[in-house]
Amino acid sequence: MALLDKIDSPQDLKKLSLPELENLCGEIRQLIIQTVGNNGGHLASNLGVVELTVALHYVLDLPEDKIVWDVGHQAYTHKILSGRREQIKTIRQKDGISGFPRPQESPYDAFAVGHASTSISAALGIAKASQLMGKDNKVVAVIGDGALTGGLAYEGLNNAGRLHRNFIVILNDNGMSISPNVGNIARYLAHMRAGQPYLNAKGNIERALENIPVIGEPIQNGLRNAKKKVKNLIYNSTIFEDLGFMYYGPFDGHDLRTLINVLRTVSSFSRPILIHLHTSKGKGYTFAEDNPDAFHGVPAFDVQKGLSSNVKGESFSDVFGKAICQFARQEKRLCAITAAMQIGTCLTRFRQLYPTRFFDVGIAEEHAVTFAGGLAAGGMIPVCAIYSTFLQRGYDQIIHDAAIQQVKMVLAIDRAGIVGEDGETHQGVFDAAFLNGIPNVTIYAPAYYDELQHFLQQAIFETPGVSAVRYPRGKSLYRPNAHVSNCKAYSLYMESNPKVLLITYGRLFSFTAKACERLHELGLSVGVLKLNRIKPLDEGIFAPALNAQAVYFFEEGIEMGGIGEHFIACLMNRGYQGRVFLRGIGDQFIKHASMAQCLEELGLDEESIYQAVKCGEGETHD
Amino acid sequence: MALLDKIDSPQDLKKLSLPELENLCGEIRQLIIQTVGNNGGHLASNLGVVELTVALHYVLDLPEDKIVWDVGHQAYTHKILSGRREQIKTIRQKDGISGFPRPQESPYDAFAVGHASTSISAALGIAKASQLMGKDNKVVAVIGDGALTGGLAYEGLNNAGRLHRNFIVILNDNGMSISPNVGNIARYLAHMRAGQPYLNAKGNIERALENIPVIGEPIQNGLRNAKKKVKNLIYNSTIFEDLGFMYYGPFDGHDLRTLINVLRTVSSFSRPILIHLHTSKGKGYTFAEDNPDAFHGVPAFDVQKGLSSNVKGESFSDVFGKAICQFARQEKRLCAITAAMQIGTCLTRFRQLYPTRFFDVGIAEEHAVTFAGGLAAGGMIPVCAIYSTFLQRGYDQIIHDAAIQQVKMVLAIDRAGIVGEDGETHQGVFDAAFLNGIPNVTIYAPAYYDELQHFLQQAIFETPGVSAVRYPRGKSLYRPNAHVSNCKAYSLYMESNPKVLLITYGRLFSFTAKACERLHELGLSVGVLKLNRIKPLDEGIFAPALNAQAVYFFEEGIEMGGIGEHFIACLMNRGYQGRVFLRGIGDQFIKHASMAQCLEELGLDEESIYQAVKCGEGETHD
Repeated sequence: MALLDKIDSPQDLKKLSLPELENLCGEIRQLIIQTVGNNGGHLASNLGVVELTVALHYVLDLPEDKIVWDVGHQAYTHKILSGRREQIKTIRQKDGISGFPRPQESPYDAFAVGHASTSISAALGIAKASQLMGKDNKVVAVIGDGALTGGLAYEGLNNAGRLHRNFIVILNDNGMSISPNVGNIARYLAHMRAGQPYLNAKGNIERALENIPVIGEPIQNGLRNAKKKVKNLIYNSTIFEDLGFMYYGPFDGHDLRTLINVLRTVSSFSRPILIHLHTSKGKGYTFAEDNPDAFHGVPAFDVQKGLSSNVKGESFSDVFGKAICQFARQEKRLCAITAAMQIGTCLTRFRQLYPTRFFDVGIAEEHAVTFAGGLAAGGMIPVCAIYSTFLQRGYDQIIHDAAIQQVKMVLAIDRAGIVGEDGETHQGVFDAAFLNGIPNVTIYAPAYYDELQHFLQQAIFETPGVSAVRYPRGKSLYRPNAHVSNCKAYSLYMESNPKVLLITYGRLFSFTAKACERLHELGLSVGVLKLNRIKPLDEGIFAPALNAQAVYFFEEGIEMGGIGEHFIACLMNRGYQGRVFLRGIGDQFIKHASMAQCLEELGLDEESIYQAVKCGEGETHD
Repeated sequence: MALLDKIDSPQDLKKLSLPELENLCGEIRQLIIQTVGNNGGHLASNLGVVELTVALHYVLDLPEDKIVWDVGHQAYTHKILSGRREQIKTIRQKDGISGFPRPQESPYDAFAVGHASTSISAALGIAKASQLMGKDNKVVAVIGDGALTGGLAYEGLNNAGRLHRNFIVILNDNGMSISPNVGNIARYLAHMRAGQPYLNAKGNIERALENIPVIGEPIQNGLRNAKKKVKNLIYNSTIFEDLGFMYYGPFDGHDLRTLINVLRTVSSFSRPILIHLHTSKGKGYTFAEDNPDAFHGVPAFDVQKGLSSNVKGESFSDVFGKAICQFARQEKRLCAITAAMQIGTCLTRFRQLYPTRFFDVGIAEEHAVTFAGGLAAGGMIPVCAIYSTFLQRGYDQIIHDAAIQQVKMVLAIDRAGIVGEDGETHQGVFDAAFLNGIPNVTIYAPAYYDELQHFLQQAIFETPGVSAVRYPRGKSLYRPNAHVSNCKAYSLYMESNPKVLLITYGRLFSFTAKACERLHELGLSVGVLKLNRIKPLDEGIFAPALNAQAVYFFEEGIEMGGIGEHFIACLMNRGYQGRVFLRGIGDQFIKHASMAQCLEELGLDEESIYQAVKCGEGETHD
């Protein structure tokens, strides 16, 4: 890596010539492919923005100027160029750097991110703060066409339109959200890319740009004249102009010379600018170019061979995807809704079998829930399959457009609990707590595939009102031979009337059961109460706890306001006099590491559970 | 009310002639003005949609056809015309009809609503359900220009654009959100209303419409030809066309003949239509026309005299508004953000004094929080003043764009707790629970004006990270003479080491203190632990509880996942052996009634608290 090895900060980049910068892009791609091959991570999106990132680092003065990345999974080049070239090999690993921008990690990361559609609003705040402080630094938001389907992006655009200051939004349009179901913005962008007026305008601008030297100050007047000529074609007719932006584009997002010139030119304008770039996801790595969806987020893989097709195996998501197809055959009113996560939630087969009952609404969780509320009010049975962390964005809608409506709706909550390597923005640790507080919601927490299938069926065919079925990322874990799912609200494992009762739900049952077995071997009177339905709690659930001398509640979710606290309050209201120990996730965000490492750190692995109970039994109280 | 008295259902309306319908509008206005004068409620918005509602009821076949009202505070005419003419006098009162659409109240109410920007998504769901079931009923969403600033509305439009079915969105544009701060959509709509192309188009369409008989089938071809002529002017250039809608308008929303003809015509089109109406808020009542803002939501008033200017007196909101102006004088980095609630949150004075540091972002709570996150990342100190119920929509942003960022931000949560007459969609009963679960958030719950001022100051000048100051709607209540705010995390009232400890926070302290006084008179050893900072709980807070034989926790907020359950879990973890009683808001939504009536029904008034403790002391457990 002859060039890259010399880049320790964006300052070093500025010394390179255009051909050197172009070669640098190749080196960066190589490093990214290697890194993701080794660690897993986001590949296709990162390969799509190499030139853009190099151009931004070349033209801007970082870290005084600010880049706010939307979603943030495309910031690997940014990290590599801003002093983290060596650390990139630790990306997404425990104690390594994050797979997403983190201001705590580097002053070059302007805003922490992991969810979509936040960049324009956040960048606008940063730009306004600079303006109020009399600073004239540049602020750039980089947002993909997918993230543009989120309402927050629109709120940001609408509010930015009147800013009297330089403010650049770069639309990184890789066309990846273009499919019949993701709404009209996608079609609109495709039209803009292909339509004659835009091609003409693009031609004119590009010709004007040709005359501008790439190194040195741009001749802005020349561009301005060219701009005047095509102004009526280029703007006055785009949705972005309607929202108050000057629109430039579309440009080839892999043409470094154009990128640098465009950025230099618009940097001097005292108003909001939108630059529309056309990029290719997976650019420069054939496997990823051919199949960018599959290379969005990947486990480690062999760079020479690409992804092995059987790398994943069965998972909770697979089981959900199969089960919902089966139920849809029986129940014609069943609909499935995803917010741009068709593959992640395993709804591809459903889409193929029941295309009219499948809805991909784009990255729009609010709409997903409210639309489902409408479907339900109209007599259908909607199942919204959304990752736990992204469902946070539908919180008000679950209250207002689902629970208050008293309609029947199912929330299939994927990636509930610790997700591991994606880190603090992605952990699914809030859903149990926030759903617990919403009136009339039923929550199921299966620990095994057959339980997922069963409780999904129950939610769809039996449970009235809003019900949620939450299940973890990945595969099911240890299952005791003696344990058979009873498909009731709860079950007991080992002793049914023990002195020491361990209580838990979901995936944590695997660890708790193992710990229980070991404690039993020590001669303790011990059993596990496994909650299957965590809201509402069945009245019968309290009897074994009330009879126990000590109860230990372990929860893979936020402790404050969680199921454990509720359970304990219920016990107390029933006059429980024994000891109580609760361990959930404390008042903290959980950084990236493997799922197992995270749980160990939280004291929620088998050994920690075992030790907590073993030690607790030697004391009067905790 | 010669005409209105005969309207018991929309069917009766269809028998009237156009002049009769116009007269009917006058009668409806009279009834609405009377009703709101007596009961309080939403006036200006309801007066603005009388003709529109009459036209919809006249053209559509309700309840088979569906009207989804956005926000829902403008549905009084709809209620009057759909069999609730007599009940309208009970609106917003205990056991009376709701001030918002409620499907449980009437089959004519298609979707429950109270929050903004939901109508397009919900109506789209209903329309899709109808399509899947082979029904061809009409589905209409009615949305204001204010609600169009919300991202959810955009998500709905974006997803609706490709529907192959009749779907009508009526944009009720009363220009009320037009002010320099509410973004570019407002300016865009103003431009559309005033711009020459649109006026021409409007003229042409209106001339074509003149030739169509108002009663009987419209001659669609005539209109279609006229439409063709002006098509290039009328659409191809609006943001709504870009999103896949056919755009018609703007039309005069008070011209009944035009409304009926337009609705009849577009009802036959198998695609999404947007009809842009220009209406006047407060239409037909001079006081409200002159001052529609003041007549948005009002208490009871004298119809002849209009609103008395001193009707409101001091409130928590006033105190907030004054305090923040004072702090902004000291601290130049302080910014105030409102989501279209400048008047309600009492930020008008702040806006006048510090216009560059004031931001009204429109009905866009998500953006409000993320934008504030950006301001904070840029070095400012943002204070977001948002009603508790609307802050629900910023839940993910508080996690992702505030707490994770580790920036300093203040959430000023107005209308926290029971709000009363606005009913179940508006109760501010979730914020304590959902904020409690978010790591590193500090929550203050003042009960009195001086406490609000103090803890706001503390949040702005001292507390690191995200802090929330939550305060109720209206005025402060009973304050014991002996009680002086100590401005600490908690305080004790009456006995400091009682056998029976009552615990509460916020406004409920007034009732709890009174109940405590009465219990004391009975000879009980009793005191009140008043929590001022409800998160994190100060370690010292537990000592008086651990020493008590019984603790009673009263909470004006959802019980499951609330502060009470957390407090109890903390007590148990510390080995508490006494009795515990917790009363918050159970697993239910709270219907409209006065604040006092709601609290009484919940057992959270003085008498209920008194009785709960008095009776509890005669028993072993609850």
